[in-house]
Amino acid sequence: MDYSPELGGIIYRVASLARRTGGISFAGGYPDPDLFDADALAAAYNQVFRDGFRASLQYGDREGYRRLRERIATLCSTAERPVDYQEVIVANGGQQGIATATTVLCRPGDHVFTEAPTFPTALHVFHQAGLKGQGIACDADGMLPDALEAALRRQRPRLLYAVPSYSNPAGALWSLPRRLRVLELAVEYDFHIIEDDPYGLLWFDAPPPPTLLSLAARVPGAAERVTHVSSFSKTIAPGLRTGWMIPPASLRDQFVHTKLGTDIHSALPSQYAIDRYIGQGDFDRHLPKIRATYGERARAMHGAILEHLADRVECAPPRGGMFFWCKVRGGGDAQDLMAAAEREKVFFVPGVAFYPGAPDRATFRMSFATTPVEGIVEGVRRLGRVIPDA
Amino acid sequence: MDYSPELGGIIYRVASLARRTGGISFAGGYPDPDLFDADALAAAYNQVFRDGFRASLQYGDREGYRRLRERIATLCSTAERPVDYQEVIVANGGQQGIATATTVLCRPGDHVFTEAPTFPTALHVFHQAGLKGQGIACDADGMLPDALEAALRRQRPRLLYAVPSYSNPAGALWSLPRRLRVLELAVEYDFHIIEDDPYGLLWFDAPPPPTLLSLAARVPGAAERVTHVSSFSKTIAPGLRTGWMIPPASLRDQFVHTKLGTDIHSALPSQYAIDRYIGQGDFDRHLPKIRATYGERARAMHGAILEHLADRVECAPPRGGMFFWCKVRGGGDAQDLMAAAEREKVFFVPGVAFYPGAPDRATFRMSFATTPVEGIVEGVRRLGRVIPDA
Repeated sequence: MDYSPELGGIIYRVASLARRTGGISFAGGYPDPDLFDADALAAAYNQVFRDGFRASLQYGDREGYRRLRERIATLCSTAERPVDYQEVIVANGGQQGIATATTVLCRPGDHVFTEAPTFPTALHVFHQAGLKGQGIACDADGMLPDALEAALRRQRPRLLYAVPSYSNPAGALWSLPRRLRVLELAVEYDFHIIEDDPYGLLWFDAPPPPTLLSLAARVPGAAERVTHVSSFSKTIAPGLRTGWMIPPASLRDQFVHTKLGTDIHSALPSQYAIDRYIGQGDFDRHLPKIRATYGERARAMHGAILEHLADRVECAPPRGGMFFWCKVRGGGDAQDLMAAAEREKVFFVPGVAFYPGAPDRATFRMSFATTPVEGIVEGVRRLGRVIPDA
Repeated sequence: MDYSPELGGIIYRVASLARRTGGISFAGGYPDPDLFDADALAAAYNQVFRDGFRASLQYGDREGYRRLRERIATLCSTAERPVDYQEVIVANGGQQGIATATTVLCRPGDHVFTEAPTFPTALHVFHQAGLKGQGIACDADGMLPDALEAALRRQRPRLLYAVPSYSNPAGALWSLPRRLRVLELAVEYDFHIIEDDPYGLLWFDAPPPPTLLSLAARVPGAAERVTHVSSFSKTIAPGLRTGWMIPPASLRDQFVHTKLGTDIHSALPSQYAIDRYIGQGDFDRHLPKIRATYGERARAMHGAILEHLADRVECAPPRGGMFFWCKVRGGGDAQDLMAAAEREKVFFVPGVAFYPGAPDRATFRMSFATTPVEGIVEGVRRLGRVIPDA
């Protein structure tokens, strides 16, 4: 695997350089803190302080707080795939879901396939677990089934890691047929899938197709191969480190035992507060505001790219999430542009950090999540002075 | 390793049986929820809601919240071993410290030595990591250096796991000479030590000797072999899942990378709240109350054992912590007493759950932490009818 912690660290280095410089940053992978529903969350905590606080301070169930698990089950249920709360294990963000699934499913030397590009902190887990990583080609409609099948004929992986809805960094949205085809391939070639879904609720104009968790109900044999992980990091707040994992039924006990060994269970006062927050309707009330804000910023970034960069950068406008994935036309290395970008005080992350194998060096990631519209337009305008003509 | 998750699960089964029965339970490993300083903690959270809440909701440093790390550094510092905040990594309770150290230090097949008896959820981690466990004989003054050295001559372990102050379950307190001798042996035989110290502040009449972390400063070569882990679970509240790890300097980056892969960082609002809680003096004000309450209960349990069980049970009264470790005189199997105990509605945990290898089946653990004095006296009186004459 070409990934290394130093390579993954480039994101932190660019983001902190941007903070110090005080320029326009498209570099972070963070949600906009101005969109945190802080008052309503404080009110939810205060509801807990009045009722349930002492229970939340004690050791609790290893799987998490039952009422929150029920809310998560509701959130993840569809008509064709109802989720029972007993299937839900609360985790410290989606990251712990990825790490737990990797521990349960993989042994050193196993092969893992991912989208190319993919989420670096997942690569970090696979790297630490001693796995061999391979990227599968994707376009704006997700992983290319033909590319996956060609890779499967050469190498059977233990695991496929995927973010089918508005991935970090590609912002891609897997189409329904591709979702179903990948599930069929999982059965045919006998591998597991981690479906990482932190952005699925952050759609702009229309919801994404059903999750792999849900669609697995249509594909015989697939349900035993899908582990769904997600979190409230992008919809409520990442600092709460509250997410979940829904493993296949046959692996549930192994997930619970692994989670127990890791940290007994996740912190409870935040689980209680999130339950109250959802219960008093704040989650459903606030989510449209996040969607509208990110959607507006994505459209602004797309418009600015068309105006200032159309002849020099290719990209597909995302239909949800937080990221634009761009490619310098005519090739070149996005890392070579960073000195000029720093002089213009505008920041992005070069694509090199996002690949399990050989990277496409012409790519780079731009987050529109944390910059208001005027800043986005000005930042892209500056990039017009940074990126050379093709 | 004889340990299995099913064996470790006996503690949960007895504790939940006790809850359902409504009897007198010495079975739990929980702190007394009536001793949670809930009002002051809620006030600390509310201080965060007024100042710092939005920052606590965002992603933060992988090592944890700097102000809390500074408080932990102060808590762990001694004159001979000052701790810098940069050495401290916040973890989800001491458990994550044990798990992280095991991931960083060990490979499947490595040998780990522990006290016999020892903490079952640590055994759970070692079992999952594929380690070979071996228990070292102990008495009320801690691990027997001669027994350790004899074992070291037969087998070099990668790791020694120890709870030198008021361990769960033995309640033992390692003497200063034994602490120093074990550190010398770590250097001589080249193994690492996880010092797990969740109970060190819960002393009754006098503080324990310095931690291994501190004493390592006196033993050339020892500092690079001690990983100190602890938590606020027994002094503030376990539901907050907030603890820490202080690894050797040369391993710090590996610990941070492993923690990053596990869950990016620990939840922040609770770290902010604990910082405010300590900052407004509540921690120092409340701790003596916990010490006094547990101390009173330990003395009551000791008195009751002397009155009702002296001829049938041997035990050394603990000088801190939450547990009495007892042994039925003349042998026998504590598990055989559980049906009679259930009829008398009094509950304890048989010792079989606490050994990495062959258990001493005559032993059992009694927690005095959650039962007021009258209940303790009555519970031990009932045990007098349960435990047969030697």
